[in-house]
Amino acid sequence: MRETSNHELNPNVSVDNVILGFDDDEIKVLLIERQPAGSSNGSLALPGNLIYDDETLDQAAKRVLMELTGISDIYLQQFHTFGDPGRITKKQDIEWLKAVRAHPEARVITVAYFSLIRIDEYEPTPSAFAKNAIWVPVDEVKSLVFDHNEILNKALVDVQQKLYHQPIAFKLLPEKFTLAQLQRVYEIILQTELDKRNFRRKILKTGFVLPLDEKQQGVAHKPATLYMFDQSKFNGGLQVSHF
Amino acid sequence: MRETSNHELNPNVSVDNVILGFDDDEIKVLLIERQPAGSSNGSLALPGNLIYDDETLDQAAKRVLMELTGISDIYLQQFHTFGDPGRITKKQDIEWLKAVRAHPEARVITVAYFSLIRIDEYEPTPSAFAKNAIWVPVDEVKSLVFDHNEILNKALVDVQQKLYHQPIAFKLLPEKFTLAQLQRVYEIILQTELDKRNFRRKILKTGFVLPLDEKQQGVAHKPATLYMFDQSKFNGGLQVSHF
Repeated sequence: MRETSNHELNPNVSVDNVILGFDDDEIKVLLIERQPAGSSNGSLALPGNLIYDDETLDQAAKRVLMELTGISDIYLQQFHTFGDPGRITKKQDIEWLKAVRAHPEARVITVAYFSLIRIDEYEPTPSAFAKNAIWVPVDEVKSLVFDHNEILNKALVDVQQKLYHQPIAFKLLPEKFTLAQLQRVYEIILQTELDKRNFRRKILKTGFVLPLDEKQQGVAHKPATLYMFDQSKFNGGLQVSHF
Repeated sequence: MRETSNHELNPNVSVDNVILGFDDDEIKVLLIERQPAGSSNGSLALPGNLIYDDETLDQAAKRVLMELTGISDIYLQQFHTFGDPGRITKKQDIEWLKAVRAHPEARVITVAYFSLIRIDEYEPTPSAFAKNAIWVPVDEVKSLVFDHNEILNKALVDVQQKLYHQPIAFKLLPEKFTLAQLQRVYEIILQTELDKRNFRRKILKTGFVLPLDEKQQGVAHKPATLYMFDQSKFNGGLQVSHF
């Protein structure tokens, strides 16, 4: 509870954040372990919580992420709102709500956000009711709290659809990257293997991936050329090129 | 108020519907005139209202559209949730809420849906607090209630972005259409003129627009060939063609 009457938690509306990163050839999602832990299996969750009545949804998403994981200064994009009246049915979830919320029985609609970040640029530090904050490869995510598996899956489908008209892939890569790394990001998001020659030909034809006069350093194999993404060529470029 | 305790309006969550149609070379939006009318100018609004606590968001969107306009059996797609604490500031809106709502001071988050339909297939009939239900060309929309101008504009931007990877354009056209009609839909959504020869060449190259062995009937000019959209060629087709 805070000082002014406007600054109260809204019992009916929450935000949840799907933070995705690319690391060691894998796409990972940032999860928190909820405190109090419900069982010996642990209770993994997306970082989310109720909104305050005097903040916007975007502000709430940023604040909650910051409070639970210490991560700030990233761009969070709203992607879907989940409001099934049966969102909260697991015994463990209901008990957790009774322990921490003023209105544990209230129906909660959650507005979900996602972000794509470079894992090595952020160091999550758990706080508030997050006992732990960890990166988990999306392929290895097991049962999450509430409907958080559904929220994560929807985020991944959305990222897949956005891959073609937003510069999604480059948010996950370092500033300078190889075409093999770029192809790997596309393959993971699209869940399919791509032909190397075709991929290189088409991605270079777009004009927004530019070769640098630089090669990889400190690799055992033959160093590959580094590339960078040119935002100014992407804006409208991919779209206008259709017609 | 209804019979069961679960079946109550949630004071904090509403749905709003942006129904777009194509007619006479224009994109139009379905608006309702609110009753009681707030001023002599009328109060035009998107068809929306609070949700019940025992229905999903999708169900609420369908129900509200049906109750206000009589339109049912259309696919409504959720596209964004609007939750600025300052969404409701106009004097006229506040007075209207006091007249019709049990908790007029409650902060309302609204989940917005859109749909693209063929105008000639639906006949809106106003009811509930809709005194009128009318199609208004989007270019001619003036001040709407609450933040409904913002919601409409966001829907139009979303439709623009989806045009390239979803079969948006064909939802607005009759089953059999001319390439001139198709081009007009693209031009309106993209807010730009397209080169006729380029457009035809590229759209036919996609493979999902097929010529029929039929021509326009009853036109004064030379009748144009009719085409149809082949959904089976679109699925994945536009996307996979990138790589």
